[in-house]
Amino acid sequence: MSGEDAPAQQQNAVDQKQETKPAEEPKAEPPKTESAPAGTAEAAATPAATTDKAPEEETFTYRALVLTGYGGYDKVKLQVKKGKPALKAGEVLVRVKACGLNFADLMARQGLYDRLPSPPVTPGMECSGVVEAVGDEVTDRKVGDKVMVLNRYGLWQDVAAVPASHTFLIPDGMTFEEAAALPVNYITAYMMLFDFGNLRPNQSVLVHSAAGGVGIAATQLCKTVKDVTVFGTASASKHETISSGGVTHPIDYRTKDYVEEVRKISPKGLDIILDPLGGSDTHKAYNLLKPMGKLITYGAANMLAGQKKNLLAVAKNWYHQFSIHTLSLIQGNKSVCGFHLGYLDGETELITQAMNTILDLYKQGKVKPCIDSTWHLEQVGEAMRKMQERNNIGKVILTTEPMPEEEKKEETKKEDKKEDKKKDDKKKEDKKKDDGKKEEKKEEKKKEEPKKEEKKEEEKKEEAKKEEK
Amino acid sequence: MSGEDAPAQQQNAVDQKQETKPAEEPKAEPPKTESAPAGTAEAAATPAATTDKAPEEETFTYRALVLTGYGGYDKVKLQVKKGKPALKAGEVLVRVKACGLNFADLMARQGLYDRLPSPPVTPGMECSGVVEAVGDEVTDRKVGDKVMVLNRYGLWQDVAAVPASHTFLIPDGMTFEEAAALPVNYITAYMMLFDFGNLRPNQSVLVHSAAGGVGIAATQLCKTVKDVTVFGTASASKHETISSGGVTHPIDYRTKDYVEEVRKISPKGLDIILDPLGGSDTHKAYNLLKPMGKLITYGAANMLAGQKKNLLAVAKNWYHQFSIHTLSLIQGNKSVCGFHLGYLDGETELITQAMNTILDLYKQGKVKPCIDSTWHLEQVGEAMRKMQERNNIGKVILTTEPMPEEEKKEETKKEDKKEDKKKDDKKKEDKKKDDGKKEEKKEEKKKEEPKKEEKKEEEKKEEAKKEEK
Repeated sequence: MSGEDAPAQQQNAVDQKQETKPAEEPKAEPPKTESAPAGTAEAAATPAATTDKAPEEETFTYRALVLTGYGGYDKVKLQVKKGKPALKAGEVLVRVKACGLNFADLMARQGLYDRLPSPPVTPGMECSGVVEAVGDEVTDRKVGDKVMVLNRYGLWQDVAAVPASHTFLIPDGMTFEEAAALPVNYITAYMMLFDFGNLRPNQSVLVHSAAGGVGIAATQLCKTVKDVTVFGTASASKHETISSGGVTHPIDYRTKDYVEEVRKISPKGLDIILDPLGGSDTHKAYNLLKPMGKLITYGAANMLAGQKKNLLAVAKNWYHQFSIHTLSLIQGNKSVCGFHLGYLDGETELITQAMNTILDLYKQGKVKPCIDSTWHLEQVGEAMRKMQERNNIGKVILTTEPMPEEEKKEETKKEDKKEDKKKDDKKKEDKKKDDGKKEEKKEEKKKEEPKKEEKKEEEKKEEAKKEEK
Repeated sequence: MSGEDAPAQQQNAVDQKQETKPAEEPKAEPPKTESAPAGTAEAAATPAATTDKAPEEETFTYRALVLTGYGGYDKVKLQVKKGKPALKAGEVLVRVKACGLNFADLMARQGLYDRLPSPPVTPGMECSGVVEAVGDEVTDRKVGDKVMVLNRYGLWQDVAAVPASHTFLIPDGMTFEEAAALPVNYITAYMMLFDFGNLRPNQSVLVHSAAGGVGIAATQLCKTVKDVTVFGTASASKHETISSGGVTHPIDYRTKDYVEEVRKISPKGLDIILDPLGGSDTHKAYNLLKPMGKLITYGAANMLAGQKKNLLAVAKNWYHQFSIHTLSLIQGNKSVCGFHLGYLDGETELITQAMNTILDLYKQGKVKPCIDSTWHLEQVGEAMRKMQERNNIGKVILTTEPMPEEEKKEETKKEDKKEDKKKDDKKKEDKKKDDGKKEEKKEEKKKEEPKKEEKKEEEKKEEAKKEEK
């Protein structure tokens, strides 16, 4: 996942005349393929294989999601690329079946994640698929192997050239969706709980967004240790699911103060707190630790407010960013850790160890990825919205299966609706600007929630219709 | 070790008309004994038992080291106290045999450790001895039990009333000196390495002051895990000892940059760094961590410069105090922990667990406290000096064995010498003040080092003479 591991096919990308960030290491010679004209979501429907008689390296086409610039959901576009990715030594070519969505992808779209090169670039840190070709010096993977892949970026496309060391064999019985849902969330949860957290029997853990991808993985992993108490935050509608998944005490963070709720049950505080929120929540977490407690912060979800970069939210998060003096740590006997898989460049051994343990637990039936929903590449915007608005329970997955023509028409209608919604949003925003008072804005947002909920209901009904078809 | 656990005998202390800091919890009714006149080191020679016919509770006397005010080595005085400490429920009375010296005691003498009530107060966080009486509700200790004791303070005296839960049975074959050397250093090293540090096979650890009490304990504990590489700092004269004790790479921090030395051998950095120094060394340690590395800071030894509180050193330490933002932790995948046993109030269960594991390791011959030297209570100043000037290898111990009259005379001579030295020091300091330039001061100090060394040599020769006697 280091700079040198950037997928080779990035270099064939269309629209690459805008230079991407210089890579940390010099690149291999670019493949001698020509750039294809910029594709659109419609053009993407063209089958990947062409009937052209030119050598496959040149006629080969594939679809790729491309972040074309920082901003809203529509900044990620489906494009067709031409030219088969060349394999470097140690790499394999994977025919991608399913991809996982992560919070870092949402941050990246807004320009808030520095591990993704500048647009245009293909996002995607994890996928599953089948090995279609192996490069020189690859000994432990062969054509036909079903694998899951973890990479710094570049996996949201039909094919990806990746280092063989970034692939893991999919165990029998695991679906491609599950395999795409596993790497980022489970390795993150595993390393936080068992490396930094040093989780042991009888301890207590707070899991924020317990219905999210990392939340569910963390809960399942907590349950592999005897008598661990899991406090999990989620909106009330998700409590039944997270309880049955292993959360001992679900807390509705929208209506209750989670600190108070935890203190009621565990007055001395907690042993481990996983914090994906950042800002003022990190302060709360620190104060909620027991002596010898560990706070593991792994994100800044509080920065994400709305589709586009919200400067106020970003500034607030920076302003409230947790900073700690060692004397305070000493007097409290506390630990503060930061984790982000995206920055674990080159730590192949650590990651492989974690993955092997997780796969063993999977084979023993102790962990199992939970899929919220699967979307076609064309629907990536909707998929991102679902995750960003916290409407998911479990993992949001993209599939490379071609989208049936009928659904596409339906999608177009939805697109129109979205356009209307956008205009609505715009109007609302203009109104807000007129108001100019931040606090009032918040109040309004609350009032708007029910409207949004209605809209979502409508969307759900439409989904249901689609399902019937 | 919480406020309520302050030894009961503190209340009988002489000179107690100056109120000590209010305790966190209301005290039991003070025993109805009378205050004895302030004792001196000489008065201390009086045998503890008297021939008076009054009840033992009143006639009982014992010697106690008392911190009479913040400052140099001479602020800790040996006094005689009257009145047998009353036992509260759950407490035992321990006839103390040996006491351990810790860095916190040195800090406390300078007024730099807030876990010790204001003077006059008896310091001492650990000792070994024999149970002489048991209070109500004590079921697991009996008269005659050999125990080691861990307490917030108050153990540097002939007898101490402590909660039974703060005592641990001394295993067969362990001397009282070893038992007094074990609790603070080994629990500290154990919890840092195995709770916060989560030490595993093949990892690398940096141990500062590897010839000190915690350093030796940490080295021994590292060796209980397979293939752990230990980098240890110490002055060159101690390298042979620490190497044979298990340090893989000894580093002379006085002549070499330890960061460079570590990088030569471990270019990626280290898994665990134990930092007792604070200030700028904490920054160095943070930068020297591998991804997933853990920095555990447990002191601010850099604050200790000279006998008395050195405001410049304290200010420098504060100024350079390490402070960390969560975003930096996240991007580095690092952990920063603070540890100090003195603040682990009431965590009896955690401490008992750690102690039981350590005692198991002792029984298996895997750990064994290393005693640097043993001193009579009258020599506490010398003992503290030896530790503060880093001339010890292993633990500095106080024994309650009465000092032979001959040695006392020798001690008096040494006292006179010390007085001379003090005057010398005073002159030097005056000179320094005249200079007024901080950097030049440093240079001078360096030049003075050899002189100091000569003096130490003289002292050593005197020790040798004493030994011959």
